[in-house]
Amino acid sequence: VRPSADVDDLVERASRGEPRAVARLISLVEDGAPTLRRIAELLSPLTGDALVLGLTGAPGVGKSTTTSALAAAYRAADRRVGVLAVDPTSPFTGGALLGDRVRMQEHATDPGVFIRSMASRGHLGGLAAAAPQAIRIFDAAGCDVVLVETVGVGQSEVEVAALADTTVVLLAPGMGDSIQAAKAGILEVGDVYCVNKADRDGADSTVRELRGMLALGRDAHDPDAGTPPWRAPIVKTVASRGEGIEDLVSAMAAHHEHLEATGELRLRRRARVIAEIEALAVAAVRGELQSKDQAERVAALADQVLAGSLDPYRAADDLRG
Amino acid sequence: VRPSADVDDLVERASRGEPRAVARLISLVEDGAPTLRRIAELLSPLTGDALVLGLTGAPGVGKSTTTSALAAAYRAADRRVGVLAVDPTSPFTGGALLGDRVRMQEHATDPGVFIRSMASRGHLGGLAAAAPQAIRIFDAAGCDVVLVETVGVGQSEVEVAALADTTVVLLAPGMGDSIQAAKAGILEVGDVYCVNKADRDGADSTVRELRGMLALGRDAHDPDAGTPPWRAPIVKTVASRGEGIEDLVSAMAAHHEHLEATGELRLRRRARVIAEIEALAVAAVRGELQSKDQAERVAALADQVLAGSLDPYRAADDLRG
Repeated sequence: VRPSADVDDLVERASRGEPRAVARLISLVEDGAPTLRRIAELLSPLTGDALVLGLTGAPGVGKSTTTSALAAAYRAADRRVGVLAVDPTSPFTGGALLGDRVRMQEHATDPGVFIRSMASRGHLGGLAAAAPQAIRIFDAAGCDVVLVETVGVGQSEVEVAALADTTVVLLAPGMGDSIQAAKAGILEVGDVYCVNKADRDGADSTVRELRGMLALGRDAHDPDAGTPPWRAPIVKTVASRGEGIEDLVSAMAAHHEHLEATGELRLRRRARVIAEIEALAVAAVRGELQSKDQAERVAALADQVLAGSLDPYRAADDLRG
Repeated sequence: VRPSADVDDLVERASRGEPRAVARLISLVEDGAPTLRRIAELLSPLTGDALVLGLTGAPGVGKSTTTSALAAAYRAADRRVGVLAVDPTSPFTGGALLGDRVRMQEHATDPGVFIRSMASRGHLGGLAAAAPQAIRIFDAAGCDVVLVETVGVGQSEVEVAALADTTVVLLAPGMGDSIQAAKAGILEVGDVYCVNKADRDGADSTVRELRGMLALGRDAHDPDAGTPPWRAPIVKTVASRGEGIEDLVSAMAAHHEHLEATGELRLRRRARVIAEIEALAVAAVRGELQSKDQAERVAALADQVLAGSLDPYRAADDLRG
């Protein structure tokens, strides 16, 4: 681990958009380096401008291809783009910045695109821990847009939605029936729905089914007719050929305008930062509880619980007290 | 919520194996009722005897059918059985005890089998929060064996392994290639592997592939040749016809004997209780941080972070201080 002076230098270089400095900083925050706090302090005044777009969906729907096509579209409009690809099922962290993922190769030589893979599995707090800092690093490096891509399994789609201003849920024809989709929780998190591989059989029925399910959800969850509610649109794409990508960009832009017009953008971002602050505070407490000085104490308490002479709640009180 | 006197009565009735009392208690712990602590206190001296067996695997491998067949086998040996089916992808909690799941119907009228579904999604701490208490309730109700079944997605297989004395990982022919299996983390958690639907094409190649992968994992993770290590066996079953279930029971029994002989059973259970105590302590802290009195304070801190005048780590310090 480099000393703090080097961290100051790294942040300065990252803020000028230097890819190696960006990569190094993300590695440091991902590893939970002792310099984490200094990095966060230095990043603080440099951030707040990037639009954070989340993409989630089951394996095989074409998330990476869509992300790459979106990156190309934003580049064509001269926007700087950061891509954070989070795989909650992988124990491996792809440390290489730029071109570490096959489908992103077209952007490998573009200094206006930063690409980073991150494994959330095994990380304390998963996405919650390192991803917000990685997004801030991209933001500080001048990215106008940060695309956060994650596989939708378990709670990860909820986590990516919590990180993003706008969340796109991707589906593909024949990738599983509606019940699976509902179970996976995707209907709770989408601001925009994208049926990719729309040239395949069953695309229209996927759209129809999705539309029906979204309508159902609306009746149940949107009783306040006083405000104009956002109706999550469904966009059809064939990302591998770039088809529909402009529609997807437009749909996300419309959602962004909605968020700004209603003041919800600020509320979402505040909720995000509140969650982050609370997660850091809880992680600090957890670290103290799991520290070496506490190990004997908690083992003794556990033995009492195993012997039936203490219940776990009282043991937790004792541990804290 | 009933007053505490009723809780005392409930625990007394549950300890006599009364299904309605067991169901009611599990609902109370699942809902995080204020009586939770009293319930834990009352359960404490009544528990510690049940063997906890975890079953995990991808959707479609036949977990419920296998669980049901195992329950039948233990019943044939006159053991009392609790079944806790946890679905980390479902937002719904199946509140009904007994016969709430189609594949468990054969046990619906057997007072020696308790069955409970639980959704971990949305619960604070997921499985970690309510499942250990539910297991204790089964234990206190006289269950010799508690089968904990969960869908293997994201981190849930790690969580179920953390709850169980012995973890069985189920696979089925053609349910996804080895890379998927490795990604899902199943190779880290299995004490026993079960290739179900073994009458299907590809069963032998699934066994072969799995054997190869387990051998690889062993080389990497088991350098200590001094102790006799557990070699996770692979059992073939056709659970729908009861084939191989006795082999599976034997394999789990052999693992249990190994755990007892090496002293690892006690270590595993202690680690489990330590994790539970720490989780409860952390949850208590989280509850305090998220309490109403703190809401304004954390919102003010979040606004400073959004304005770039404070970083999230310092905000977390302020919140705790």
